[in-house]
Amino acid sequence: MTTEQMMTCIRECLECMKKCNQCYDACLQEEEVNPMTACIRLTRDCADVCVLAAQFMTRNSEHMKEACVLCADICTRCVEECRNHAYEHCQACAAACEACAKKCRAIAAA
Amino acid sequence: MTTEQMMTCIRECLECMKKCNQCYDACLQEEEVNPMTACIRLTRDCADVCVLAAQFMTRNSEHMKEACVLCADICTRCVEECRNHAYEHCQACAAACEACAKKCRAIAAA
Amino acid sequence: MTTEQMMTCIRECLECMKKCNQCYDACLQEEEVNPMTACIRLTRDCADVCVLAAQFMTRNSEHMKEACVLCADICTRCVEECRNHAYEHCQACAAACEACAKKCRAIAAA
Amino acid sequence: MTTEQMMTCIRECLECMKKCNQCYDACLQEEEVNPMTACIRLTRDCADVCVLAAQFMTRNSEHMKEACVLCADICTRCVEECRNHAYEHCQACAAACEACAKKCRAIAAA
Repeated sequence: MTTEQMMTCIRECLECMKKCNQCYDACLQEEEVNPMTACIRLTRDCADVCVLAAQFMTRNSEHMKEACVLCADICTRCVEECRNHAYEHCQACAAACEACAKKCRAIAAA
Repeated sequence: MTTEQMMTCIRECLECMKKCNQCYDACLQEEEVNPMTACIRLTRDCADVCVLAAQFMTRNSEHMKEACVLCADICTRCVEECRNHAYEHCQACAAACEACAKKCRAIAAA
Repeated sequence: MTTEQMMTCIRECLECMKKCNQCYDACLQEEEVNPMTACIRLTRDCADVCVLAAQFMTRNSEHMKEACVLCADICTRCVEECRNHAYEHCQACAAACEACAKKCRAIAAA
Repeated sequence: MTTEQMMTCIRECLECMKKCNQCYDACLQEEEVNPMTACIRLTRDCADVCVLAAQFMTRNSEHMKEACVLCADICTRCVEECRNHAYEHCQACAAACEACAKKCRAIAAA
């Protein structure tokens, strides 16, 4: 694993946390919230695990790879759900989650 | 998975977070801190992942099992390290981590 | 501040996190989610700050009092919102937040 | 409060979390860890509160200002401690904490 690779992954995790929280906030402001409940739940889980992974990487934890695996799994599930909604915030969130999952899997495999 | 089983696991995770943080605090007050650095790192990781698992379970997250797997893995590693130190705080932490890992693995397998 | 007082406050914070997350989960399962959005947001904020306060107290942080002040403020706001809803989960959450706020203010003043 | 102002503050909080965790990791690798224990404790508190503030801002929480106040207070204390140590990681951490505290106070006053 190169430092460059880890720095990129940290950046993607934090960007993903941001997009997940913005999506969560926007979902709660939609005219009809009922169809967004899965998205609300998943963006919260995803934001929290992105933070965990970013904290583990920045402090050089021996468990960073396992944290990145969990992060990638939750990101991937969040992409699936967000892809079901045409809203710009869901699409932006899906893109950030997809990028984050990819970098997290690269860390896990490094 | 029974509600009883999940409630027990939540309780063990929170107890483990507490014992990890008390061990962390005590390690930082030992006369010689150098031999305790692995313990300081691991108790921090462990406290954080215990909180993640407890939060996921209490909010009925679809990812609670995966969070419990990560929690069990980190707890098990923390037991290993704490067992190397005779301090009462390390032994208490190891016991809490062991109990937590067991309950987390039961949730993951349920 | 006595150890007893701190242990009680830690327990109330963790119980409050649990009740907030259970309320959040139940709100997202209500037939009409739209009226529950403020509650969903507040229970999330409250769960997170309860965890922060509990982590700070259990690791004997020099900032535990300030964390308890923020925790008490958010709990109090969460009580206000939950009191607007007759659901059992909202009433249970309000009760836990109220108890937590009280213990946190006692720590802050100790 | 402008969006620009908030985006800047989020960025500073996340940068500060990163520098705090890198300082924490480096402190635990110093030849003599005993003089670094206050720094280890403070960088952990600071990383955690930076994450809380960043999460609150990115999800548009009504408590973001109070979270920023707590964040600024802990950052300021972390600056004080890090300034006592000549290590590059402590100086980098102090600089990030100082920048973060400033932006957080601006949010709180906005």
